[in-house]
Amino acid sequence: MKKNAVSTITVGLIQMACSPKPEQNLKQAIESIRAASEKGAQIICLPELFLTPYFCQTEDTQNFALAETLSGPTSETLSKLAQELEVVLIVPLFEKRAPGIYHNTALVIDADGSIAGCYRKMHIPDDPCFFEKYYFTPGDTGFKSFPTRYGRVGVLICWDQWFPEAARLTTLSGAQFLFYPTAIGYQDEDTNVSQQQISAWETIQKSHAISNGIFLGSVNRVGRENALNFWGRSFICNPFGNTIGQAENEPQIVIAQCHLPEIETVRQNWPFLRDRRVDAYQGLTKLYLDDDE
Amino acid sequence: MKKNAVSTITVGLIQMACSPKPEQNLKQAIESIRAASEKGAQIICLPELFLTPYFCQTEDTQNFALAETLSGPTSETLSKLAQELEVVLIVPLFEKRAPGIYHNTALVIDADGSIAGCYRKMHIPDDPCFFEKYYFTPGDTGFKSFPTRYGRVGVLICWDQWFPEAARLTTLSGAQFLFYPTAIGYQDEDTNVSQQQISAWETIQKSHAISNGIFLGSVNRVGRENALNFWGRSFICNPFGNTIGQAENEPQIVIAQCHLPEIETVRQNWPFLRDRRVDAYQGLTKLYLDDDE
Repeated sequence: MKKNAVSTITVGLIQMACSPKPEQNLKQAIESIRAASEKGAQIICLPELFLTPYFCQTEDTQNFALAETLSGPTSETLSKLAQELEVVLIVPLFEKRAPGIYHNTALVIDADGSIAGCYRKMHIPDDPCFFEKYYFTPGDTGFKSFPTRYGRVGVLICWDQWFPEAARLTTLSGAQFLFYPTAIGYQDEDTNVSQQQISAWETIQKSHAISNGIFLGSVNRVGRENALNFWGRSFICNPFGNTIGQAENEPQIVIAQCHLPEIETVRQNWPFLRDRRVDAYQGLTKLYLDDDE
Repeated sequence: MKKNAVSTITVGLIQMACSPKPEQNLKQAIESIRAASEKGAQIICLPELFLTPYFCQTEDTQNFALAETLSGPTSETLSKLAQELEVVLIVPLFEKRAPGIYHNTALVIDADGSIAGCYRKMHIPDDPCFFEKYYFTPGDTGFKSFPTRYGRVGVLICWDQWFPEAARLTTLSGAQFLFYPTAIGYQDEDTNVSQQQISAWETIQKSHAISNGIFLGSVNRVGRENALNFWGRSFICNPFGNTIGQAENEPQIVIAQCHLPEIETVRQNWPFLRDRRVDAYQGLTKLYLDDDE
């Protein structure tokens, strides 16, 4: 039985390719979770919408059939697995909340199999090949974190990663870990452009770890699906933004040990949270400040 | 006479070592501004507190004698220079506002020599060797940008660079350029630690360029002053976070051309500003969200 290690927590990221068959993806996820657990992982995160291909490349009502309710078969199966292995799982789902209301969601399942929390993707992209505004109602959960056996876990999803507001609010809610289940790839075969995109993607997320003093794991899928080449490169970084585990662009489990006291050490040494000018941040709740001219 | 080039603006950063003598530093700054202008620079930025050594390593009332008023000799001299060379200047000053109220300030001088605006450092650090809370009253300007002949210029100063809120608000005010006059160095002679600090410093600032789609220039000083080794590495990056000019750790002028239409191109391709959840950001005006439990 796994002890609740108070100071060092092992995190596992499941970077996987997603086949057209949900049952096959679930099987692959379960096998990978077992493998990660055997390697000592205590908190394990799956990629965004891991059960399906990235269906948002087209707008098609038939894809809504891929959605399931939060208390559906996937969460039931993975709750049992979490309980058996005594691991915390972050489980992204295409959530059917009500007829006509679907979300891009992630469940946090605690190590006893109970649901620790649910996050619904707040920032929804819409670009060619990423037609998410068609499928997903923007979330109404706000930015939260959830206490689990192995620490306080915050989850944001993919496009959220470009918004420092989301990382900040999740941190201020007390998160020690911030996970980004992701499905990001390039269409452009220009290696220079795709390398710049990958670099920007790593930079923005590491910046959240740095400015907030938090452990951060980003979990991408891999493989080509129609027009998109998902670039993998899943990584874990410490509260100083240093990479402590990273995958290449093939199916891979990333494991890293997170020494939790680093959070406070980093925040004491570079005390950004001490000095926020909350008296001067009201404008952040506006889209643009053209009225202030 | 310099034309107002509407689409491409040349930026110059003056990375310099600062001697104990203010008059010598001003002379050096003037020579460097002339040199940058000869290389085509239209907007030129000096480092934080460039007139003096970084006096905040100790707390000493005698250092307040280094402060001057905004309409003092330095701004007069540099306003004339800006007018002569038809350049926009960002001029950091230790501002004496009133007896007992001193700020860490930057003036933006327009290309006709007029004052385009003034920013007072909002986030004030206080760490061993950076005792700024002793000297500087936190700014009351808020986060702004100022129209100039060569574009809309926002200025933040050093410690501000760790706060994504500051970069966001400056962007939302309409800035096309974001400058960070800076005085940052390491005390630790452990190369590994100092390299991590430099890396975090570059990452956080590039992340602001990326998340906001803005040109960004960061201007540091160089050289050892008492316990601090100022690491230079001044750089300019484009709205995608790519470095388009960078110095090493010696006195150097960094010149880069900024093609302004890139701002809109980048923001159209990765449209983060479109999707901010301003309905859910109220918590950003709080220090911590422990009351929301």
